[in-house]
Amino acid sequence: MKAGNQTTGVRLRVVLAPGIALGPGKADLLEAISEAGSISAAGRHMTMSYKRAWTLVDDMNGWFCEPLVETGKGGAGGGGARLTALGETVLKAYRRMEKAAGAATEPELTALRTEMADIAK
Amino acid sequence: MKAGNQTTGVRLRVVLAPGIALGPGKADLLEAISEAGSISAAGRHMTMSYKRAWTLVDDMNGWFCEPLVETGKGGAGGGGARLTALGETVLKAYRRMEKAAGAATEPELTALRTEMADIAK
Repeated sequence: MKAGNQTTGVRLRVVLAPGIALGPGKADLLEAISEAGSISAAGRHMTMSYKRAWTLVDDMNGWFCEPLVETGKGGAGGGGARLTALGETVLKAYRRMEKAAGAATEPELTALRTEMADIAK
Repeated sequence: MKAGNQTTGVRLRVVLAPGIALGPGKADLLEAISEAGSISAAGRHMTMSYKRAWTLVDDMNGWFCEPLVETGKGGAGGGGARLTALGETVLKAYRRMEKAAGAATEPELTALRTEMADIAK
């Protein structure tokens, strides 16, 4: 099962520009970094390799006029990591967009589910 | 670049039930079948193998109380394929959900894009 398909509802991929997209995975990674205080711990929490987590962070940092994640001393993430003010702003904006999209599409989703086979529900 | 990330805006994955998701790819496939009148032509249009297109159709047909795509005589798609009434209903519902999600999230997306690096826009 694709990550993010575990619960009924809509998932949002925000294409900020061609080829540049912020989806549930990157948003969850930002949130995990905020909570765990390190990229490696956040990656473990998401069963994602450190390299993968770091690459995603590096990508996201390059998209915006300031980084979303800053790392402390001690090398790449060794000294911990945290969201910058812009990182918090972007994460919160994504969560608001998720909520808005969920609310805007809920009646259609409920109607679609009534057409489903019982075995698939 | 992931399919569907070509244009700025939001992409929607509708998780109908755990593990059962209708996203841009499947919606585009339904639309292509409706236009092309065959699964193989629709797959070619989307540069997707016939096997892949057929598997996706078969999955979708199993999720609902009736099939979304019906195939004519002449074997698996050999006699052409078309959307059933329910297939049209599901496709239209997905397109309405896309529009609703887009409208509901547009102000946040516009604001987020102002924070982007010029090089990424």
